[in-house]
Amino acid sequence: MSHTYSTLDWSVSDHILTLTLNRPEQMNAFTVEMCNELIHAFDRASADDDVRAIIVTGAGKAFCAGMDLSREGNVFGLDESQQPTLSDLNERFSDKDIVEGVRDTGGRVALAIFRCTKPVIAAINGAAVGIGATMTCAMDIRLACEHTRIGFVFGKVGIVPEACSTWFLPRIVGISTALEWSMTADIFKADVAKEAGFVSKVVSADTLMQEARALASKMVERSAVSVAMIRQMMYRNSALDHPADAHKVESLGMFYTSLNDGKEGVASFLEKRPADFKARVSKDMPPVYPWWDKQESSD
Amino acid sequence: MSHTYSTLDWSVSDHILTLTLNRPEQMNAFTVEMCNELIHAFDRASADDDVRAIIVTGAGKAFCAGMDLSREGNVFGLDESQQPTLSDLNERFSDKDIVEGVRDTGGRVALAIFRCTKPVIAAINGAAVGIGATMTCAMDIRLACEHTRIGFVFGKVGIVPEACSTWFLPRIVGISTALEWSMTADIFKADVAKEAGFVSKVVSADTLMQEARALASKMVERSAVSVAMIRQMMYRNSALDHPADAHKVESLGMFYTSLNDGKEGVASFLEKRPADFKARVSKDMPPVYPWWDKQESSD
Amino acid sequence: MSHTYSTLDWSVSDHILTLTLNRPEQMNAFTVEMCNELIHAFDRASADDDVRAIIVTGAGKAFCAGMDLSREGNVFGLDESQQPTLSDLNERFSDKDIVEGVRDTGGRVALAIFRCTKPVIAAINGAAVGIGATMTCAMDIRLACEHTRIGFVFGKVGIVPEACSTWFLPRIVGISTALEWSMTADIFKADVAKEAGFVSKVVSADTLMQEARALASKMVERSAVSVAMIRQMMYRNSALDHPADAHKVESLGMFYTSLNDGKEGVASFLEKRPADFKARVSKDMPPVYPWWDKQESSD
Repeated sequence: MSHTYSTLDWSVSDHILTLTLNRPEQMNAFTVEMCNELIHAFDRASADDDVRAIIVTGAGKAFCAGMDLSREGNVFGLDESQQPTLSDLNERFSDKDIVEGVRDTGGRVALAIFRCTKPVIAAINGAAVGIGATMTCAMDIRLACEHTRIGFVFGKVGIVPEACSTWFLPRIVGISTALEWSMTADIFKADVAKEAGFVSKVVSADTLMQEARALASKMVERSAVSVAMIRQMMYRNSALDHPADAHKVESLGMFYTSLNDGKEGVASFLEKRPADFKARVSKDMPPVYPWWDKQESSD
Repeated sequence: MSHTYSTLDWSVSDHILTLTLNRPEQMNAFTVEMCNELIHAFDRASADDDVRAIIVTGAGKAFCAGMDLSREGNVFGLDESQQPTLSDLNERFSDKDIVEGVRDTGGRVALAIFRCTKPVIAAINGAAVGIGATMTCAMDIRLACEHTRIGFVFGKVGIVPEACSTWFLPRIVGISTALEWSMTADIFKADVAKEAGFVSKVVSADTLMQEARALASKMVERSAVSVAMIRQMMYRNSALDHPADAHKVESLGMFYTSLNDGKEGVASFLEKRPADFKARVSKDMPPVYPWWDKQESSD
Repeated sequence: MSHTYSTLDWSVSDHILTLTLNRPEQMNAFTVEMCNELIHAFDRASADDDVRAIIVTGAGKAFCAGMDLSREGNVFGLDESQQPTLSDLNERFSDKDIVEGVRDTGGRVALAIFRCTKPVIAAINGAAVGIGATMTCAMDIRLACEHTRIGFVFGKVGIVPEACSTWFLPRIVGISTALEWSMTADIFKADVAKEAGFVSKVVSADTLMQEARALASKMVERSAVSVAMIRQMMYRNSALDHPADAHKVESLGMFYTSLNDGKEGVASFLEKRPADFKARVSKDMPPVYPWWDKQESSD
């Protein structure tokens, strides 16, 4: 499975994919090309059984300094002649002209991360501003260091938060912190991010990748199907109105995983040995996956 | 735009409205008149382009000591002869007899705050108990000082939490803290509120208004349309089931703001000068605003 | 009201029910029998006016060490010949073969806790692993001590989180911590749980039950109908899309409680004496209860 990216570096070892935003001269500023390459990379990682966890970081000093505003023309890639409505988005969500002319590039990346079957860790090595900050909201866990600077600066640029951050950020830090960070457009450091629970840990810059790999390694040792199910269940079930709907999905997840990796899990526990999980995300997801198309409520 | 309130003080300077609950002899206890004046004031501030941020505080020692229970008759303003049902509220939500005879006064204020286009900061200068506590939940950010006392005391009075606090409070502090505070009906101080993330900052009483103004000033400098959009997007999008629905709204928000204040934002960034945003909330909201009537889901 | 359990101890004093998981030789490991007894006990407590608060703890050293994996045969109680679908769960949710053959036992307990009219406090005296951890997520408040060990270890056993924890846990600690704990499957101590807000307080083991009783005692002094309403309103209203829907329920809750315990609450406040609340959960819930079957949205 070979593929060359011009804005990213793709590197896998010990089942951990490190995806490096790789435009260091431009502080890894985000472009339409980077958007498309990130979507490709997350979908590729999602399908590749050799990848069991993903770390995203930035080459050089920055994580991602935001949208590349130095480019000629309309930096947001919009076609001004359109007058898009919510109906256009609801009815033609996947049409080429809507995808390329209206849909936010950061949001398209966030949805690729959302549907990914692998855990995603952001190792925020430096400035993460604008799309650099919001893209990490769709990632599962964030780590910071002394060089980390985070800013939801959209109000300073006269635009709005994107990359689905209005959905993700309040789930991570609560609604009030999400509002304060976005409405002030402040740039803040790792300690503020840690206090709010935005980052899981603050470590020194020279151990950041090591810490990210240590965290990823734990996930790599687990059942890959369990981890993929956990990820989708947490995001999707917690957004439902009633716990009974989560219960239905959990019941089916438990039923089918018990007949597969669950058998090895119980056997290894009883035999006091490490588990040797064989189920693959590409082929062995429970037959009810994806369940979300069929969701209905009951009380 | 002149208007006189009897329970409130309205004062605007540097685009910051300070709204002071002004019944100091009664610890700013809440009345039906205060309810109606608060709704009027938030709707007025929402429409007034000169107001760019709102601070709510209390005159004298208290912020608001709760419903005024000293009044004659039915303190909650209820018409006991009615036997209202959920159907009545669903079908006749805006009918005068339902609005005045059944709908919770605190909730009517909370909904006025919810629909407001300006950021709202609570400067909790003293006791905030009952409706004094719950009304701050609908505000975006809370600041406390050494005199702050907060109590969700409804269980002590034999009634239930209101002012939409059962919707807002768990979004601010998580479900368990919301339950603990409400089911114990404890009165607690600023440090407890800070630890739970209910207040953003604890400062000394003599700098409370100064800190609130410093926070508001940052928001005043941002694009007013951006801030109005951020506020509505955060509350509304985060409550949706799926990030794709947030993505649709964000895409439209980004599309239209990019053609207005976004142009000035990018230009000012490239020219390394302060932005001079011109878009007004009264006239220049993106044409998709309000988008929530048209929301539909997709996966 | 007498009933004997073989896996539980039921003990009521001062209106506080202490429910003790009582298989100390097996670290209180969870069985199908314990599932059924817990459901019975929560439904019984819910209907019993003498019970005003519930504490759940474990006999001996552990709280609950997880599913009892030492049992013969299919430990999860599943009928492998079935190929259940989400339709089966949606359409035959309460059918015996679905309840016993497909539905997760932990989730059935969680739903019994969810519908309970009394506050539920977990006193986590030792290991709480797997279902031992997830069952506490459906409880309102958790207390820990120096012996507490918590682990969402499903990924280690090749299965998925259950007991509706994919709905409850992100509401308690935020989505990122929920994901990190579940995808690493780490076992962690009380300080980690406290920092994330999973437990309300960490105390010494020898005062754990005393602290739990002190917390429960406060709730016992409140209006029982208020507390029952608070509990259901917080969980259910906060999961709705729009605060106006919370407002409707709160308005009705306020209307009807004001005509009952609310009168005594106001009178006792004005007369500066303790309130003597008479309303009973078994008979005096507001006539709109349960309101959730009739919920509709409006903006």
